[in-house]
Amino acid sequence: MERTLMLDGSSLTIEAVTAVAREYVKVEISLEAMERIEAGRRLVYELAESDVPVYGFNRGVGLNKDRHIVSKYYQEYNRNLILAHCVAVEPEASEEVVRAVLLVRLNTLLVGCTGIQPAIVTMYKDMLNHRIHPVLPERGSVGEADITCLSHIGLAMIGEGEVDYQGIRMGAREALEKAGLSPVALGPKDGLAIVSSNALAAGKGAIILKDAVDLINIADMMYALTLEGYKGNVSPLEEAAYKVRPFPGQAHTAERVRKYLEGSYLWLPGVSDALQDPLSLRGSCQVHGSVRDALDYVIKYMDIQLNSSDDNPCLLMEERRMISCSNYEVTTWVLGFEMLGIALSHLSRNACYRIIKLGTPRFTGLSRFLTPADTRVIAYGTIQKTFTALDAEIRHLSNPCTVDYFSLAGEIEDHANNSPLVVEKTRKIVDNLFYILAIEAIHGAQAIDLRKATRLGIGTKAAYEAIRSEIPFLEEDRNLTIDIKKAYVLLKSGKLLKAVNRALEQI
Amino acid sequence: MERTLMLDGSSLTIEAVTAVAREYVKVEISLEAMERIEAGRRLVYELAESDVPVYGFNRGVGLNKDRHIVSKYYQEYNRNLILAHCVAVEPEASEEVVRAVLLVRLNTLLVGCTGIQPAIVTMYKDMLNHRIHPVLPERGSVGEADITCLSHIGLAMIGEGEVDYQGIRMGAREALEKAGLSPVALGPKDGLAIVSSNALAAGKGAIILKDAVDLINIADMMYALTLEGYKGNVSPLEEAAYKVRPFPGQAHTAERVRKYLEGSYLWLPGVSDALQDPLSLRGSCQVHGSVRDALDYVIKYMDIQLNSSDDNPCLLMEERRMISCSNYEVTTWVLGFEMLGIALSHLSRNACYRIIKLGTPRFTGLSRFLTPADTRVIAYGTIQKTFTALDAEIRHLSNPCTVDYFSLAGEIEDHANNSPLVVEKTRKIVDNLFYILAIEAIHGAQAIDLRKATRLGIGTKAAYEAIRSEIPFLEEDRNLTIDIKKAYVLLKSGKLLKAVNRALEQI
Amino acid sequence: MERTLMLDGSSLTIEAVTAVAREYVKVEISLEAMERIEAGRRLVYELAESDVPVYGFNRGVGLNKDRHIVSKYYQEYNRNLILAHCVAVEPEASEEVVRAVLLVRLNTLLVGCTGIQPAIVTMYKDMLNHRIHPVLPERGSVGEADITCLSHIGLAMIGEGEVDYQGIRMGAREALEKAGLSPVALGPKDGLAIVSSNALAAGKGAIILKDAVDLINIADMMYALTLEGYKGNVSPLEEAAYKVRPFPGQAHTAERVRKYLEGSYLWLPGVSDALQDPLSLRGSCQVHGSVRDALDYVIKYMDIQLNSSDDNPCLLMEERRMISCSNYEVTTWVLGFEMLGIALSHLSRNACYRIIKLGTPRFTGLSRFLTPADTRVIAYGTIQKTFTALDAEIRHLSNPCTVDYFSLAGEIEDHANNSPLVVEKTRKIVDNLFYILAIEAIHGAQAIDLRKATRLGIGTKAAYEAIRSEIPFLEEDRNLTIDIKKAYVLLKSGKLLKAVNRALEQI
Amino acid sequence: MERTLMLDGSSLTIEAVTAVAREYVKVEISLEAMERIEAGRRLVYELAESDVPVYGFNRGVGLNKDRHIVSKYYQEYNRNLILAHCVAVEPEASEEVVRAVLLVRLNTLLVGCTGIQPAIVTMYKDMLNHRIHPVLPERGSVGEADITCLSHIGLAMIGEGEVDYQGIRMGAREALEKAGLSPVALGPKDGLAIVSSNALAAGKGAIILKDAVDLINIADMMYALTLEGYKGNVSPLEEAAYKVRPFPGQAHTAERVRKYLEGSYLWLPGVSDALQDPLSLRGSCQVHGSVRDALDYVIKYMDIQLNSSDDNPCLLMEERRMISCSNYEVTTWVLGFEMLGIALSHLSRNACYRIIKLGTPRFTGLSRFLTPADTRVIAYGTIQKTFTALDAEIRHLSNPCTVDYFSLAGEIEDHANNSPLVVEKTRKIVDNLFYILAIEAIHGAQAIDLRKATRLGIGTKAAYEAIRSEIPFLEEDRNLTIDIKKAYVLLKSGKLLKAVNRALEQI
Repeated sequence: MERTLMLDGSSLTIEAVTAVAREYVKVEISLEAMERIEAGRRLVYELAESDVPVYGFNRGVGLNKDRHIVSKYYQEYNRNLILAHCVAVEPEASEEVVRAVLLVRLNTLLVGCTGIQPAIVTMYKDMLNHRIHPVLPERGSVGEADITCLSHIGLAMIGEGEVDYQGIRMGAREALEKAGLSPVALGPKDGLAIVSSNALAAGKGAIILKDAVDLINIADMMYALTLEGYKGNVSPLEEAAYKVRPFPGQAHTAERVRKYLEGSYLWLPGVSDALQDPLSLRGSCQVHGSVRDALDYVIKYMDIQLNSSDDNPCLLMEERRMISCSNYEVTTWVLGFEMLGIALSHLSRNACYRIIKLGTPRFTGLSRFLTPADTRVIAYGTIQKTFTALDAEIRHLSNPCTVDYFSLAGEIEDHANNSPLVVEKTRKIVDNLFYILAIEAIHGAQAIDLRKATRLGIGTKAAYEAIRSEIPFLEEDRNLTIDIKKAYVLLKSGKLLKAVNRALEQI
Repeated sequence: MERTLMLDGSSLTIEAVTAVAREYVKVEISLEAMERIEAGRRLVYELAESDVPVYGFNRGVGLNKDRHIVSKYYQEYNRNLILAHCVAVEPEASEEVVRAVLLVRLNTLLVGCTGIQPAIVTMYKDMLNHRIHPVLPERGSVGEADITCLSHIGLAMIGEGEVDYQGIRMGAREALEKAGLSPVALGPKDGLAIVSSNALAAGKGAIILKDAVDLINIADMMYALTLEGYKGNVSPLEEAAYKVRPFPGQAHTAERVRKYLEGSYLWLPGVSDALQDPLSLRGSCQVHGSVRDALDYVIKYMDIQLNSSDDNPCLLMEERRMISCSNYEVTTWVLGFEMLGIALSHLSRNACYRIIKLGTPRFTGLSRFLTPADTRVIAYGTIQKTFTALDAEIRHLSNPCTVDYFSLAGEIEDHANNSPLVVEKTRKIVDNLFYILAIEAIHGAQAIDLRKATRLGIGTKAAYEAIRSEIPFLEEDRNLTIDIKKAYVLLKSGKLLKAVNRALEQI
Repeated sequence: MERTLMLDGSSLTIEAVTAVAREYVKVEISLEAMERIEAGRRLVYELAESDVPVYGFNRGVGLNKDRHIVSKYYQEYNRNLILAHCVAVEPEASEEVVRAVLLVRLNTLLVGCTGIQPAIVTMYKDMLNHRIHPVLPERGSVGEADITCLSHIGLAMIGEGEVDYQGIRMGAREALEKAGLSPVALGPKDGLAIVSSNALAAGKGAIILKDAVDLINIADMMYALTLEGYKGNVSPLEEAAYKVRPFPGQAHTAERVRKYLEGSYLWLPGVSDALQDPLSLRGSCQVHGSVRDALDYVIKYMDIQLNSSDDNPCLLMEERRMISCSNYEVTTWVLGFEMLGIALSHLSRNACYRIIKLGTPRFTGLSRFLTPADTRVIAYGTIQKTFTALDAEIRHLSNPCTVDYFSLAGEIEDHANNSPLVVEKTRKIVDNLFYILAIEAIHGAQAIDLRKATRLGIGTKAAYEAIRSEIPFLEEDRNLTIDIKKAYVLLKSGKLLKAVNRALEQI
Repeated sequence: MERTLMLDGSSLTIEAVTAVAREYVKVEISLEAMERIEAGRRLVYELAESDVPVYGFNRGVGLNKDRHIVSKYYQEYNRNLILAHCVAVEPEASEEVVRAVLLVRLNTLLVGCTGIQPAIVTMYKDMLNHRIHPVLPERGSVGEADITCLSHIGLAMIGEGEVDYQGIRMGAREALEKAGLSPVALGPKDGLAIVSSNALAAGKGAIILKDAVDLINIADMMYALTLEGYKGNVSPLEEAAYKVRPFPGQAHTAERVRKYLEGSYLWLPGVSDALQDPLSLRGSCQVHGSVRDALDYVIKYMDIQLNSSDDNPCLLMEERRMISCSNYEVTTWVLGFEMLGIALSHLSRNACYRIIKLGTPRFTGLSRFLTPADTRVIAYGTIQKTFTALDAEIRHLSNPCTVDYFSLAGEIEDHANNSPLVVEKTRKIVDNLFYILAIEAIHGAQAIDLRKATRLGIGTKAAYEAIRSEIPFLEEDRNLTIDIKKAYVLLKSGKLLKAVNRALEQI
């Protein structure tokens, strides 16, 4: 099946970005959007002739904004601009990130405020569909448009620099040729149009938000599994309490966990001995819910980002003029990512404490560290260091970094937000959490086996089986590094969640 | 004029909390709400007789939750509970905070999920209206209900400990007597009802959110003033650019600044020489807007907090039972405060850079450090250290602290969020920002004078005059510590904003 | 007894600073030192006549460094300089800090690299001895000399601004008069000599280092007490293990704790049941030792700071010239404070875990939360929130803040270190730790009583008795806020340590 | 040339660790040391027979410490222990880190407090000399011995798991066979002896400290180069000022920079126009010196770490017993790394400001952003974002993370320090700084060319030439990502410093 995504500058979602980035979904541009591009380009030429001074168009950029650019030098000036902005450093962005960047820049061009030439718009589409992925060093942008990085895409478009063409590294010119494409010739404003965008932070950010949505769903699932392994009290899941305290995220998680646990032995009367379980189990809906609330905030504003103009100068078609503005500013959603990171740090601690509880006999009534036989097997003792070490790293990453910037370009660029750095640290946090939840999965399944709990919930049963299909019961001590990796892949690949969803749909 | 606020458990706002806390507005309780309280109490007695085990009610709290409380010992047990929870340490909460705490606890009781005795509900009201303010040490709560602090209110209610009665420190018993009130006798669940609430963090938090709203409005005002002092380009205020990038906060600020600048010389054609001003001036709407977006998030959830139950156990009237739950969890809005702090750190840096620019001749065309005469007066040079030192403190405070907790009470209380600490650091951030904006006010007015700008905006003119009514033009070097203090009071007291609003209304 | 401290510019210690600051020890200036001052002054006049350009002397300061100062305007220029540097903001420094500042600036003047007039040197001494304490707002310095704050001392010296004279607030001129002193008349370089010093951060820092030394000694004592309450294994105190791992601090603590525990029942054979106690008890020597190692680092460099020149320009007597330099830089010891803060955060967590262990029956064999009778008294349960809340604040404060500075004064002042902020946060950390150790004291004594341990160590016995002389055994629940305060005062005042030292000396 | 390092447990340095790790220097064990090992082993067997209970020896580890290990099960128990500790997660340690780990564990064994069997000691040596490098996942240790990671080395030693043998991945058994070695058979205490060490953090840490020493030397060099490009004032280098303020690090840097600049035009009279340069140039000796002071602290304690026992239990040969202790504690030097990180953040900001100054005409008198021709070339404008983005990452990394740990293993392991995480973040900081200094190198050389400065210092001339041999003068805009990478390699590989040292030696 070959799926296609129709782009129109107004309906891109984080899910669609991820599908194009990871699954090579092809993209098309809507007719209307393409007409906007063409109309915009005509206006640019009109304005170019009139010589009203416009930043980065017929004047220089940054501190050079007082310099005039004479029209016959447009191509040279714009190539120069691309070259001079190629200053980013390693690591290279992954293929999925490069694709997300191409897609996001393409979609925001379609809003119609850029004035870029139509051939470049088409080039973004062609690069995606032909899998021509420019080599894109990731570090060097302080936010306020990722100009130092996006330049490397421009470089490939004019046939310079390197790309990965269908997975093979080669010169950009060669790749374009192989794909039957020609390098673009840069006209007025094209250089700026290519570099002056937040597509790196936004594209990568969109993927990570999608991962974070998956993560919190998996976290809900692991909490449900832990409840069964622990023989936990289900009263904190009761709907009634959420009605008198209407925070949306926690109600969402509680509902989801109830669904996962449908049919579980936990709902039988008198199952739980405890009046109240430890907070890590009792309050998981609240902690997970706080992550959901934070996530909603970021996604809400990321959706605006993906479907609005971040150009400066900004072409106003109706008013037929180009104005200076600050539409490259992304601070609102960067702050959202900072909050999300702190929320995920709460999630991490919460999950760690749940896992610790699973290994503690006086809470579970099970064996110490979930050993199968009490005297010789060490089982899940030392592993506590692993997940708490990963948590410590999350705690460190959750410190804010958006506000640490310099005043640059002759003191003109005296605000920034480090959006790519904030996004990258969030990626690491999310990835670490997949490991932690993987370790929770291992504990949950072991506890269920030790407890000989047979009547599992519909969702938890599917999860349990998915885990056990990869990782057998721990009968003897073994190299757990291998088990952790398997569980991590199971969770991160989406395989476990798919199995659970399939089970839930079959009811 | 004596204003009264009618409380019903569902309509309290941060503005109302602030009014009661600072302006001694009297409070009443709606009839319906009082009926809920009475019905709840009757249910409590029914349940008490049935002896279904309920945490903190007929069982102990924390790790002691497995201990039975026999009904005849309710009063002793509950007094004991209050005493044993009196473990907070200095500093004492300010009067306004104590009042906010009393009010917020009172309103959340009216939701009707507590089962507290009606006489105690009335006592909260009476304490507020008679200005009986228990001495309330502020530190010692890790969130998850401020039990170590709120206990001190319970202490006063039973006639022990100390209070400030109409501003004078005395024994609680004496104060109650003077006010014609009697100490309460604690019945079942009353101790827990008093302590198990987030009223400290929420009450103080509500006041600070109100201050933050005022702050961002003043920041918009100061930005407008700086634009006039700087002779800034007003193109970043144009509505059109905000329409193609619909982040709500920035559009709000831009509109507000346009209003403040109505009639200003800045709108005259050809005023600004610069194609683009430094980002600190060009992007202020975006930075201020990001603060507004963050603030909206926190207020939205604080509104839920102020008008919903945070009781555990939670009385469900319709279902006629009491359930264990995690409704004491406040992590969602605590995370919002963390984000707000980082947002305010952006605001701080932004304002600092604006002030620095005002002192820089090659940007303003004015004298160095806004000196009146070039050779002898030092003027606003050294003051740069002051506001950047305050900014460094804000940067430090903006680091998160919500996730640093221990596993307590025999490992049962293994989640927390440090809500009071998060709220307190936000208070300091906001206060520092009032100083920084005060220094911007001083610079703005001096720049306007040096520029001999006569045609000011309606709002900026009012602000300029308010500043000049307190602080004269700097002709000779003088002790600026005095000027800063005056400007700070002008801003923080609300006086400047009132003057501006009056001017705007007169149009 | 009236003690006197002889100052010579080369032998000031943190102990001496604290004695002068807190105990009003009088100061004298050595003859040799005074001769250096006078010789320096003569050289200044020689140089003034020669008109070799020197920063802040016959040229302006900061960005104004290109401006010439004509000799007849010295007094006006220097008064102006003082006034223009009065830009600090609240809070006012405490009396002890003001005294430390006066003392430290005085001593560094005696190094002889300033060129200040002798009358001002004498004025520092007189202010200290007459207890004339200028009102000194503390915030506004970014390090690199605390010019915005020290100016306020200059203000008082010329008879302007306010002072506390023997505890009473009055005008500086009035106070000088009452003390029989005359305001100084500022000559060349005098303004700069007064403000251009790190005496605020260094003076306050010296006091805090002294407090930190006391604190770590008390921490050792509390650890010893906890060992007795816990019936801990003393094998981690054995000298042999420290010999094969020669970190100095931990050996120091181990020796001290062995001394405190001399004669204790803990040394009896077979006392401890545990092969190994929890790390919080087993590794206290190491954690305390790490604090000692860090503290040694800071004190070593603070000693240099207190007895060396931080003047710029710097008078070189032998070479008979004045040179520009960076001797105002204090980054080395500021970094030491940052490390110390993190070390103290370790100490805090360590102490918190010890206290938690004391309340945990399966570790101590004692009752839950050290209750005297098992069913009715709640005892030391809720208090866990108090000390861990204080720990969370310490964790927050321990984040670094030295590197968050702006480029100021026309981009000339593009380095800073925020020394006063770093010092202030360390003060708060140390103070919080006194509370935490106070709570450990309460627990330790209660555990000893419950255990009926009679044969205590020489040091621990004295500590136990000092605690019990203020705070009785907890028989019934009571307001523990009061107990905590008493214990805090006992520790912070030095009273407990004095009692212990007295006991140790009597052997 | 084949070099050999003789190990004796008491003379290992960070330089030697780096040489073995990177240059495959062979290692030998001194006779005396080997005799200590054998004597220790004999004692272990004596003790094993006596059955005095010793943790991890004839009793379990962690929470399992109450379990008895019967002597005939030693091999099974110890293999089990190794397996159960294999719980670390990706990434895999680099070859150089694996070698450093092997070396450091080997050397600390030679102290003679472990009691390990001699064959295992030999195995460490053989693995190094045969280049058998176990696959070692890096994350999972919280400090307090890197047991979760070092287990993977034990795994290879018993012929399980995977290794890289002379660069090729294969099974451990196969590699041992190819090298003519046999797997070891584990005896009493051997498992613990292998895992219970801080060799991961210490080994990797030692390499990074060596890199940091190189880095600060290069930083001194770059500062010298910048001074020449800038035409900076050399008065801050004068020895006299350092004598009246004897902080060691700054005097060291000043001396080094004077040497690099020997013979430079900067020493000619009247060269510098400025009375005082910006602090970033004037205070570099102080900032670099603070890094040196911090580095001295860490190296001093790392030296102890590399040459002392971190075993628990610890074998005391003379006393012929084994004792429980806390010699696995590394907090002192971990705190040193935390301080070093903050110091390096200062260095980073300092270097960034120097680079910015080089691009600022009003400071240098050169062209804007060091463009060769004023109107068309953009040159080093955008690159400011690159180095400040790298600085922001450093700032973020410099936040402490040592104190964020959990209470594990049934609350027994309630202290940790996250040493591997602290070391890893320091590695990243150092690496980023190599990029930043690489960019300073590019700027310095360009400024020197534009200034046509011909008479360079001996050291700076060599550095200039080394740079120009790789990177030509920027005549036209080009892809600077390539230039940055070249300069980075030049610095990080040690090539530039070698060229400089060669030049200095030739005098």
